[in-house]
Amino acid sequence: MIQQLIEKIKKTKAPICVGLDPMLNYIPEHILKKSYNEFGETLEGAADAIWQFNKEIVDHTCDLIPSVKPQIAMYEQFGIEGLKSYQKTVDYCQQKGLLVIGDAKRGDIGSTSAAYATGHLGKVQVGSKTYSGFHTDFLTVNPYLGTDGVKPFVDVCNSEDKGLFVLVKTSNPSSGEFQDRLIDGRPLYELVAEKVVEWGDTCMDGDYSNVGAVVGATYPEMSKILRKLMPRTYFLVPGYGAQGGTAADLAHCFNEDGLGAVVNSSRGIIAAYRQEKYKQFGPEHFAEASRQAVIDMVADINSVL
Amino acid sequence: MIQQLIEKIKKTKAPICVGLDPMLNYIPEHILKKSYNEFGETLEGAADAIWQFNKEIVDHTCDLIPSVKPQIAMYEQFGIEGLKSYQKTVDYCQQKGLLVIGDAKRGDIGSTSAAYATGHLGKVQVGSKTYSGFHTDFLTVNPYLGTDGVKPFVDVCNSEDKGLFVLVKTSNPSSGEFQDRLIDGRPLYELVAEKVVEWGDTCMDGDYSNVGAVVGATYPEMSKILRKLMPRTYFLVPGYGAQGGTAADLAHCFNEDGLGAVVNSSRGIIAAYRQEKYKQFGPEHFAEASRQAVIDMVADINSVL
Repeated sequence: MIQQLIEKIKKTKAPICVGLDPMLNYIPEHILKKSYNEFGETLEGAADAIWQFNKEIVDHTCDLIPSVKPQIAMYEQFGIEGLKSYQKTVDYCQQKGLLVIGDAKRGDIGSTSAAYATGHLGKVQVGSKTYSGFHTDFLTVNPYLGTDGVKPFVDVCNSEDKGLFVLVKTSNPSSGEFQDRLIDGRPLYELVAEKVVEWGDTCMDGDYSNVGAVVGATYPEMSKILRKLMPRTYFLVPGYGAQGGTAADLAHCFNEDGLGAVVNSSRGIIAAYRQEKYKQFGPEHFAEASRQAVIDMVADINSVL
Repeated sequence: MIQQLIEKIKKTKAPICVGLDPMLNYIPEHILKKSYNEFGETLEGAADAIWQFNKEIVDHTCDLIPSVKPQIAMYEQFGIEGLKSYQKTVDYCQQKGLLVIGDAKRGDIGSTSAAYATGHLGKVQVGSKTYSGFHTDFLTVNPYLGTDGVKPFVDVCNSEDKGLFVLVKTSNPSSGEFQDRLIDGRPLYELVAEKVVEWGDTCMDGDYSNVGAVVGATYPEMSKILRKLMPRTYFLVPGYGAQGGTAADLAHCFNEDGLGAVVNSSRGIIAAYRQEKYKQFGPEHFAEASRQAVIDMVADINSVL
């Protein structure tokens, strides 16, 4: 699976993913109005607005990008109706040729992780038939429970040619509270990184592993060290743009081959029309603003590679 | 919220929750057959079988227990249809007077955790209306991202009178891989425990906090230390029964007031009819076997308190 991502990155020259993390207040009035007129101010109405918003952004950016990363929490907050929009978005992006990174940060004891892996990456058996639930291409995974909580995800990656990004060093302000604590003189995130390498060694796909790592753009000194520790691990890099990470901060996340990282931007792309810089597009043309923001982001990142 | 749980525990004299974590191979043939006849061997058919199975167990145990803990992964693996059964199960248990601990182990950066907190414990705003998605009473939370990833859950607990159980020391075999690593001479799980106390201090409900901790039954020496470190924190204790934890192992999880812990059993209760001990009930009377297993579990735990 990671080779598919690499091919798409090479083709688009865009080592990025667009974070489809819609909040209702990002969605222009004319879309909300239309959905509420049709379904009322209901969970179904909200879910429809999210889906219409996503679709337009995907339509305006899919030729420029290799991948998207929907954050499932943003859909889960609207219950079943929201999750239907998540699934619809995943389906649609895949139809448009994009790889989908489900940002779910799941992780539990072995048998439970196996169920999550089945639901998001694999196939579930029902009598004599098999089905796939949310069928994303990649999934983000939380490592706090250790190897037996991650292994079922790795197994499904091997059997179904899918990929993971395991949390190593996250982009948020408190990430250091536990992740940076020193164990035998080294931060916890380095120990997690070593385990990710170990898990990844069982799941290689060409020069890179299908088991990647989440490494925040907001801690460039740390990503420099992690890049060396994990030479064959692809990084999913959140924190660029709205969270404060700059292109210069990102440079360390890439290998000398120009590969090794896919940088996410959510708000900076999907709510671009609300920024001063893209104001001229106006809410009616929000998806064109997103397209321009993608073009600018790709140029910015390529300027440091 | 924790006071509601304590009252129900006192009333039933049963400091337990039943883990509603159905796997299709736990479900007796006659239920599967009925659901497949109605809906086919489909995701809908599987979800219906799970729901029928849950309902019968709840009907046969609800007068004996204070709470249930559905593991959302077991539903998520069947996609949207599975999650509809999760929601139906949550609704039904609450109608029957049970408190519901959603075992979802969610956790992310602040804004994303806020969306999860809204979806599982809070209310979401849609135009001028508000709705609740999965509306459980408690939720399990993963602490790897630190305070800003947990705080939004705590905030919702305060505004909506809900509760959390934050992973501290999990019951699985690899839990020590990161959780037991020493930081300044003390294991990581103790540092997490201290943070849980800190978060919990802002969210007290009587003598206990609405912010609880997950502490596995399988590591009794550690739970002894954690009990002292966290005197006003309720423990959700997985690992009893099928995972190997015994009643003697559990004793340390309780305070001298006989309170402080709620012990989960999943397979040991819901698939009791498949054990030699309860074989006489037969698959047709699986829910009666579950009832007897609850009675035996409660007696076993009370014998060490």
